[in-house]
Amino acid sequence: MGLKLYGLPMSTNTTRVMACLHEKGVDFELVPVDLFGGENRQPSFLAKNPLGRIPVLEDGDLTLFESRAITAYVDEKFKETGTDLLRLQNPKEAALVKVWLEVESHHFDPAITPIMFEHFVAPILGKTPDQAAIDASLEKLGKVFDVYESKLSCTKYLAGDFFSLADLHHHACTHYFMKTPWASFVNDRPNVKAWWEGISSRPASMKVAEGMTFVDKK
Amino acid sequence: MGLKLYGLPMSTNTTRVMACLHEKGVDFELVPVDLFGGENRQPSFLAKNPLGRIPVLEDGDLTLFESRAITAYVDEKFKETGTDLLRLQNPKEAALVKVWLEVESHHFDPAITPIMFEHFVAPILGKTPDQAAIDASLEKLGKVFDVYESKLSCTKYLAGDFFSLADLHHHACTHYFMKTPWASFVNDRPNVKAWWEGISSRPASMKVAEGMTFVDKK
Repeated sequence: MGLKLYGLPMSTNTTRVMACLHEKGVDFELVPVDLFGGENRQPSFLAKNPLGRIPVLEDGDLTLFESRAITAYVDEKFKETGTDLLRLQNPKEAALVKVWLEVESHHFDPAITPIMFEHFVAPILGKTPDQAAIDASLEKLGKVFDVYESKLSCTKYLAGDFFSLADLHHHACTHYFMKTPWASFVNDRPNVKAWWEGISSRPASMKVAEGMTFVDKK
Repeated sequence: MGLKLYGLPMSTNTTRVMACLHEKGVDFELVPVDLFGGENRQPSFLAKNPLGRIPVLEDGDLTLFESRAITAYVDEKFKETGTDLLRLQNPKEAALVKVWLEVESHHFDPAITPIMFEHFVAPILGKTPDQAAIDASLEKLGKVFDVYESKLSCTKYLAGDFFSLADLHHHACTHYFMKTPWASFVNDRPNVKAWWEGISSRPASMKVAEGMTFVDKK
């Protein structure tokens, strides 16, 4: 029985997992979830994920949610194939990957998510984007990118001179961010720009980017 | 050479790591960082963690930051001793631990942290707590606890009938939260209450709680 991924190809949390599966060369079935129709709030979906969020991965009798837990599971389960994303054979490299995974979770993601929401989602909901909220988040994001710029002057990727899950986790949100008026936050930092070009030009990234049409539907 | 942990015993991010080290029975040296004097913004500290945050762990020539990356490293490195916090010998259990670690990171922590800030930190900074911000966060936290209440009616701990790193990561913030006027959010949910009593009565939790004097210093 193959892997079943419940989600949507325009959702950043879903494409985080899809990019990982492509990096590993693992086949899966994508099962769309009708968020607009409230399918994620139905008992059958809440039985898979009580938080009512996409994505959800089913692997036989194991049901997992939270995109970043799923990617780690996929990399460990399929450790023999595709890109080595967690570097588990080298404890020091694996520890550094963990550090930068947490930086993405606790510094990058909380800074970039409100920008995504205000710029892309608020207008769909009939609201005016809150520019003060955007500005506050841009200030935080700029500081995170300053740290990245310095780190990436020493190593090609965040955890070292190897592409890892820590880099991959940045792809989805940065892809949409580059379509906002603030893409200069990346482009004006040469090391961040080169890093982003490295991430976004990977075949797995390009494959998921094809389905990331959220912005185009505005 | 032993482990060196830079941090403060009243800091939730530091005690998250200390509780893990106690669970593993691993000795370490706690090196205080003078946050109020800005030591974390000095070049010597930024060389350890460019984000300027505590805690930082030094293990020989390896320097790690982000509390949740450090706890995972510690559990893997000392897998033969103390509590088995990541269940790495059982891939399904390990995957479920990962899921609930991410729930703590992306749902519990963002809901509880603003409450901590407004209730305990704002008055120290001479500010009036923002009750609207507290109320909005309490609403989110209540929804998270509702999910926990349901899950904990099926299993003793979040990832299963075993204490794991996912439970441990909740200790620090919940310890302080129980000293706020909103402790009923835990006490009124019988399964969450029993879970919290299980976590907080562990010797490792009680040991770090002794140093969590932030509230008493108000």
